Amino acid sequence: MASSTRKRILIVGGVAGGASCATRARRLCERCEIVIYDKGPYVSFANCGLPYYVGNVIKAEEKLLIATPELFRDRFNIAVHLEHEVTHVDPLRRVIEVRDLRTGARREEAYDALVLSTGAQAIRPPLPGIDLPGVHVLRTIPDSRKIRAAVESAQRAVVVGGGMIGLEMAENLVHRGLQVTLVELAPQILPVLDAEMAVYVAERLEQQGVRLLLGQSVSAFIEAPNGGLRVETSAGEAIATDLAILGIGVRPASTLAAEAGLRLGERGEIVVDEFMQTSDAHIWAVGDVVGSPDIVTGVNQPVPLAGPANRQGRIAASSVLRGLGDPDCLKRSPMRFRGIQGTAVCGAFGLTVAATGATEKALLAAGQTDYQKVYLHPGNHASYFPDAKPIHLKLLFAPTDGRLLGAQAVGEADVARRIDVIAMALQMGGTVFDLEEAELCYAPQYGGAKDPVNIAGMIAANHVRGDLPLARWEDLPGTSALVVDVRSRDEFAQEHVPGAVNLPLEELRERLVELPRDRECWLVCGVGQRAYFGLRALMQHGLKVKILSGGMKTYRTFDVG
Amino acid sequence: MASSTRKRILIVGGVAGGASCATRARRLCERCEIVIYDKGPYVSFANCGLPYYVGNVIKAEEKLLIATPELFRDRFNIAVHLEHEVTHVDPLRRVIEVRDLRTGARREEAYDALVLSTGAQAIRPPLPGIDLPGVHVLRTIPDSRKIRAAVESAQRAVVVGGGMIGLEMAENLVHRGLQVTLVELAPQILPVLDAEMAVYVAERLEQQGVRLLLGQSVSAFIEAPNGGLRVETSAGEAIATDLAILGIGVRPASTLAAEAGLRLGERGEIVVDEFMQTSDAHIWAVGDVVGSPDIVTGVNQPVPLAGPANRQGRIAASSVLRGLGDPDCLKRSPMRFRGIQGTAVCGAFGLTVAATGATEKALLAAGQTDYQKVYLHPGNHASYFPDAKPIHLKLLFAPTDGRLLGAQAVGEADVARRIDVIAMALQMGGTVFDLEEAELCYAPQYGGAKDPVNIAGMIAANHVRGDLPLARWEDLPGTSALVVDVRSRDEFAQEHVPGAVNLPLEELRERLVELPRDRECWLVCGVGQRAYFGLRALMQHGLKVKILSGGMKTYRTFDVG
Repeated sequence: MASSTRKRILIVGGVAGGASCATRARRLCERCEIVIYDKGPYVSFANCGLPYYVGNVIKAEEKLLIATPELFRDRFNIAVHLEHEVTHVDPLRRVIEVRDLRTGARREEAYDALVLSTGAQAIRPPLPGIDLPGVHVLRTIPDSRKIRAAVESAQRAVVVGGGMIGLEMAENLVHRGLQVTLVELAPQILPVLDAEMAVYVAERLEQQGVRLLLGQSVSAFIEAPNGGLRVETSAGEAIATDLAILGIGVRPASTLAAEAGLRLGERGEIVVDEFMQTSDAHIWAVGDVVGSPDIVTGVNQPVPLAGPANRQGRIAASSVLRGLGDPDCLKRSPMRFRGIQGTAVCGAFGLTVAATGATEKALLAAGQTDYQKVYLHPGNHASYFPDAKPIHLKLLFAPTDGRLLGAQAVGEADVARRIDVIAMALQMGGTVFDLEEAELCYAPQYGGAKDPVNIAGMIAANHVRGDLPLARWEDLPGTSALVVDVRSRDEFAQEHVPGAVNLPLEELRERLVELPRDRECWLVCGVGQRAYFGLRALMQHGLKVKILSGGMKTYRTFDVG
Repeated sequence: MASSTRKRILIVGGVAGGASCATRARRLCERCEIVIYDKGPYVSFANCGLPYYVGNVIKAEEKLLIATPELFRDRFNIAVHLEHEVTHVDPLRRVIEVRDLRTGARREEAYDALVLSTGAQAIRPPLPGIDLPGVHVLRTIPDSRKIRAAVESAQRAVVVGGGMIGLEMAENLVHRGLQVTLVELAPQILPVLDAEMAVYVAERLEQQGVRLLLGQSVSAFIEAPNGGLRVETSAGEAIATDLAILGIGVRPASTLAAEAGLRLGERGEIVVDEFMQTSDAHIWAVGDVVGSPDIVTGVNQPVPLAGPANRQGRIAASSVLRGLGDPDCLKRSPMRFRGIQGTAVCGAFGLTVAATGATEKALLAAGQTDYQKVYLHPGNHASYFPDAKPIHLKLLFAPTDGRLLGAQAVGEADVARRIDVIAMALQMGGTVFDLEEAELCYAPQYGGAKDPVNIAGMIAANHVRGDLPLARWEDLPGTSALVVDVRSRDEFAQEHVPGAVNLPLEELRERLVELPRDRECWLVCGVGQRAYFGLRALMQHGLKVKILSGGMKTYRTFDVG
């Protein structure tokens, strides 16, 4: 081939998706010219590690640098231009305008394929005082450097936003010895979870001395006379602090794409197809800047997660090479992005929170009401082996065919493992019957002969088979059903659902006649197992019975009096 | 219904499968009479915990008792007769003969359905001295009590058999301060794994002071004058010890079934269908005593694992009730046992070993040669987060369509998690492309933006797409290929494959001309990544190249000089 036919792939943004795309493109094509531009001072850095760098869990800044421009050059023959901002895209002429931020010089660069991996930017609402030096965001290494420096002399911090990043920040700041207040607009922390699952985390945060201000937003940041800040909230709170960190989310950094006339979605995200191609046939986009369809709800929206960004980068590379007519790539079947299923994990104060698929909230928001849910609290491993820790698990599924819709889990150990297994099943279009019959690792220190995933599947499968009718905790207030608590008298005496009657499982068969036949009975116990045993007996005697899933351990996470 | 129609379900064996079957049968049918007979003194005990009870990790014996006869009676209305041996089954008359071991009294009991959960018994080969009091097996609580007592005054132990139970015993005996020698007939420990994967575990055992005698069997146990034992091996070793523990496997306890004329397999296992029904329409069998088809190889054999036993118990209950004409159960679609996929895990000295699906060995034994394999050594979590531990992973798959065949992993952290995810994918009929695109939990302390499971899938998928030709370490001796090591000069100087030439990745593009065009080049690096980068460049320049998968970390596990 003549050198004039050497194709140019330009990539805007060198973190996660952009870096993955560049190196994958090189592996597919030795002949192409591949150039990365990034406006920041680093390429391919570990942005997920930033909270831990602030917390000094990761001690050295160089740990966060996954790759350098030299490595890209020497290993991949890829040119990386740092502190170069791409200021304009001209899709008709297929050129970009690049500004060298160090010199201010501008130049034009022509492309055959352009990949936008411009990421997302932290949301900074236009509040009074938002630009004060004590108000931080955490997106880049320089951001984290500033916060680390501020933390050195600080005693108090306010974290604004109770999502996963907010939680990680709170943990790391407490780890550094600061008194932390967390302000969250929603009435719960971790709005990405269903409210009752977030309760376990909120309790742990409060045990660890984090002050939670839920259901309120910041109304102003005010400079305090002593050099600190005063953070005022919508509920009239005024918190004296040394620094504030915003973690209220990000929005797609799509200005460049918008100006280029690319099709954007409602939230400003770039619209791409399953090959990561934008509305322009010569432009692809990956990572936090694009929208992706949720494989459960079908909702298309930006989901800022590193895993999908990396996979999208690889897929885009393959599509780019096909687009450029690379004969090897055209021979292959194209790679497709399957969509997002929202698998995420977060650690905070010894707890792990993880989720995959849709939450109940997300299902309802998408207008999907044909779902069912079960709660369970199995140990992470066999109860007879020392130090078993409960995993609080919620499983959502389709009640007719048992198709998996989502799962959320909170606990101290092996939580990510169970969510990963369910994530794999969900990706494969699996059902609760697949979880029921899963053959998973078991030795006493690793799991149970019935793994938590099996148990979740068994309970849900029992429901789908019609053997385990479910009542909803939300329907408890004002129900005409009789709540029957099948625990022991001692357990009942300690705490019970108001209005419940106590009929221990061991006496149930003899005392059947005491239960009404014309009224529903809702059975409850500690975690759900004994209630299920009782329910099976009562159902076969013709009583109208349902289970309050998850027992008293779930009851206390619902605000149903 | 008249009381004369009350059906009788008798269950022989009250551990795992039998207990699961009994309680499930009760949940499905309140009216049946359900009776469990067990010849031992306990019902439903935690046999997987016995090594840890010997090791005093589990301190109290009562921890091992999952349930008692009283609990079965009070919660489930199930009668449990302990120390009752079922001595005879008469399938024609549908009666069993039961002997009360405490009184010697015999009686007959009639059944409508009989479930055999007689388990397996430890193999005790007819060796000289096998019945000496110092020679133990570990299957029951009384066994473990005897070993615990012997350990109190012992300094040395010999463990015969290097399978998972043998390893757990070795660990627990070292934990109790004993000097342990482990004798294994195979030339490797953990014969359930492929040899090269067992190397990591053998090294760890030796580091911990366990003496390994591989490729030899015990020829005799001889009483020593001082009260101890001398264990003599086929290789002429004579080991002085205070006690010996046999862990050389189990065989189905199927004498009762054989005498009843039930169809048995080659290894003495009871042949059952997918509903756990035996060759007699009124007899079912579950657990270690039955044979199950391997879902990958199709080989039908007994697999003594607690998870499948429990699930088989549930399935048998549902089939029994259908067999008895229970109207509710007949309305339901029947539950089917899907077969065994051999998921197993074992901990030893801080390492976790886990596997699912077929090993290479098992594939070859089943005559399946159409497979491919990759090795990798990813960290359990992001390398930039402190204390990342490598996971040594081997993935087996079909080279044409990428269908998953099996996986084995060894490492210090999060090993079971990755095998569980692959187990789920394999159960669902998944491919390497499904692993490649899996959306799994990622935060720096939990995984990577590319999880080890993703990386395994990506490497294998690259092979299936034709982008990553693989050479086999086994073919290294005598190959005419040139081994090209793309690591740095320093790394090469430390250790390299004999005959390899060094051409660092960073110089590869400039020094292409030095490589032969008429001879295969096999690329190697530290773990496989740089070799892959080099391979892609060389392939596109028309060279004949392959990868030695897993790099030098895998090289040292192969005995290929």
